[in-house]
Amino acid sequence: MSGSLKIAIAGLGTVGSATVALLREQAALLAERSGKSIDVVAVSARDRNKLRGIDISDLAWVESPEKLASVPGVEVVVELIGGAGGAARATVEAALAGGKHLVTANKALLARNGNDIARAAEEAGVEIGFEAAVGGAIPVIDALQDGLAANEFRRVYGILNGTCNYILTRMQEEGLEYADVVADAQRLGYAEADPSVDVDGQDTAHKLALLTSLGFGCAVNLAGIHVEGIRDITQLDVGFARELGYRIKLLGIARMTEAGVEQRVHPCLVPESSPLAKVQGVINAVVAEGRYSGNIVLEGFGAGGAPTASSVVSDIVRIARGVRRPAFGVPASRLRAVAAAPMTRHVGQYYIRLMVKDRPGVIADVAAILRDSDVSLASMLQRGRSATETVPVVLTTHETTEERMGRAAAAIGRLDSVVARPRMIRIEPL
Amino acid sequence: MSGSLKIAIAGLGTVGSATVALLREQAALLAERSGKSIDVVAVSARDRNKLRGIDISDLAWVESPEKLASVPGVEVVVELIGGAGGAARATVEAALAGGKHLVTANKALLARNGNDIARAAEEAGVEIGFEAAVGGAIPVIDALQDGLAANEFRRVYGILNGTCNYILTRMQEEGLEYADVVADAQRLGYAEADPSVDVDGQDTAHKLALLTSLGFGCAVNLAGIHVEGIRDITQLDVGFARELGYRIKLLGIARMTEAGVEQRVHPCLVPESSPLAKVQGVINAVVAEGRYSGNIVLEGFGAGGAPTASSVVSDIVRIARGVRRPAFGVPASRLRAVAAAPMTRHVGQYYIRLMVKDRPGVIADVAAILRDSDVSLASMLQRGRSATETVPVVLTTHETTEERMGRAAAAIGRLDSVVARPRMIRIEPL
Repeated sequence: MSGSLKIAIAGLGTVGSATVALLREQAALLAERSGKSIDVVAVSARDRNKLRGIDISDLAWVESPEKLASVPGVEVVVELIGGAGGAARATVEAALAGGKHLVTANKALLARNGNDIARAAEEAGVEIGFEAAVGGAIPVIDALQDGLAANEFRRVYGILNGTCNYILTRMQEEGLEYADVVADAQRLGYAEADPSVDVDGQDTAHKLALLTSLGFGCAVNLAGIHVEGIRDITQLDVGFARELGYRIKLLGIARMTEAGVEQRVHPCLVPESSPLAKVQGVINAVVAEGRYSGNIVLEGFGAGGAPTASSVVSDIVRIARGVRRPAFGVPASRLRAVAAAPMTRHVGQYYIRLMVKDRPGVIADVAAILRDSDVSLASMLQRGRSATETVPVVLTTHETTEERMGRAAAAIGRLDSVVARPRMIRIEPL
Repeated sequence: MSGSLKIAIAGLGTVGSATVALLREQAALLAERSGKSIDVVAVSARDRNKLRGIDISDLAWVESPEKLASVPGVEVVVELIGGAGGAARATVEAALAGGKHLVTANKALLARNGNDIARAAEEAGVEIGFEAAVGGAIPVIDALQDGLAANEFRRVYGILNGTCNYILTRMQEEGLEYADVVADAQRLGYAEADPSVDVDGQDTAHKLALLTSLGFGCAVNLAGIHVEGIRDITQLDVGFARELGYRIKLLGIARMTEAGVEQRVHPCLVPESSPLAKVQGVINAVVAEGRYSGNIVLEGFGAGGAPTASSVVSDIVRIARGVRRPAFGVPASRLRAVAAAPMTRHVGQYYIRLMVKDRPGVIADVAAILRDSDVSLASMLQRGRSATETVPVVLTTHETTEERMGRAAAAIGRLDSVVARPRMIRIEPL
């Protein structure tokens, strides 16, 4: 063994504390794998005296996290503060400006500023590790960077948010409505008090932006992602989906098309036989469709202290070994600025659920609109009959464009006998 | 970009040809990811004029593969000849002796001589890549080496042989007997004319030996693996397993126990709800149970030209990037010589199927033997009644030791009313 690698950690929440604990518990193993000891020499967090389950009395305390880069001897700054702005950003910028390697779990920051951060790291000649930013413990960044490096990818997609998958799983397994599961998830700590970033799809979008850049060699483009969340998913749709042989999952999907890179986050109907349909609860899963490898599926815990620390520390080990590779697979200056494929050009199958007044001619009207919009019907289900109340009607289509489908759905929504906005969910063939 | 990496390829079978094709088709992408162009400067194979679907007229031809290391400028030798002896071994030894990096898909050779090869590579200061040796396209070596480097592993296991999984899947889906599926698999090219290395579990053992070394930091120990194949699996057992909520899979399993490293390859009853139960056909899957990561599941094509070439070329890219890491995660001199846990000490649940003469008292006799052997019965199934023919009886046990179970099974086999050797299959909780 030759010497030590000195690191400083910013942020001692769940992940930061778990990282310190892992580094301590596995010091001998990590030294063996790294070829040097890994020493935490300084930490910074909001509150020095918070109860954390780890003893930090022997670690130098630094009030401002951006000052960690200036602690003598520090070679790696580990940013685990989180959030796209403020302290996290200042810490990252100070680390790179000071010529320190950076390890971070911060998808929000990388999704917004990844291109600048990659460029700054290259100019400084330092490494960025962000395995922990996508898929928790799942070594997906490494797979795209290294183990699958020979491949062009046709598609990279997955279940990237454990909170949403937990909510959808419980809706499907227990027949509960969205609001009830969210309330329960909040009580159990699986959802934040304000769950918006998760349930509205933003967190999935942050992670997808990084996978897209790695998979397709293009600049990170968060703004180019079409994002829809899961708030509108109802038990009615969950039940119909099951009846049709599907499960509803929130996916992030990146695909190279002739119109550019298609990046989208939205609920999908996935066939119950597909690997992703079987991913339950807080588990995440990513599928990389490589030109040579074929489909590679990676599954594991997408969040949590120890799983995320596993990825943080694996990045540190790699840096200790002296491995240097461009943040997004190719040098930042060579990341292509690929146009975002407009969502209107998306081609796929659709599930449409209507609430209609149960009277003769409704289906004929709907069918006529689809015909006139050049959308071909694949199946139709009507459940229940009622002279006084509205009843659900479910349609699925053959492949069509988002533009045509949107136009048809709007026209259907304007029919007198259709009483609510048609609910449209895309079907994803996996 | 700075210059080129010159490589030589030994063996132009399915994988070798696919590797040449991949390197040509993706030259620009690979150069971008590697920081240099990757140039095949020489090849060697048994027959220069064999039809391969690739044009090798512009590649220097070398008659003896072990001479590839001496071709001027060559920095990496890619060994794709296969087999533990002869030409493959000579090629590998010549490469390392000549100070060349080595990329190989040769699990048989590494499982036998991995320790020596790792030591020779370290002494020569060169890199060994063998991602292609385990799990085809699945980046599992890289995951254990890098993306999960922070973890001690509790268990590493998986479906590592596509031929066996194909056979077992068809037996389960189509109700066919072993011999019929094997014959069909041979016709379709999924099984060799002599399928022994696959169906007897040796190929799985080769791969497991490498995963064990990587996962537990111990020297490669092929001889320490308990190996059983799938030849004795019958439709009767497949059916009973399903009735009990299990699927039969050939697994390779490595586990650290108090008695040493337990390495075993044998058919297992796995719960139908487990991820491995759902892995169908030629697909492989590996589960790494990390102390921090939790269970990570990796799935994909375990064989075939393009999938295996994906891993071969990814290793070449890593070498081109200048990454250097010990072959088995820690320096060869530090790989521990851990004792192999004796199989008699294995603790688990068991499935036992008997063929008995259907007369009063048989079950009482069997139950008495189990009681006297201190093996606790979990369930019992008897199907059919016949005064003249034998009928099957299936027992499952609670956890016990292999030693006790073996003794009990032998005693049961000696009962007059038991007409064939009891068939025992281990139940693996996943």
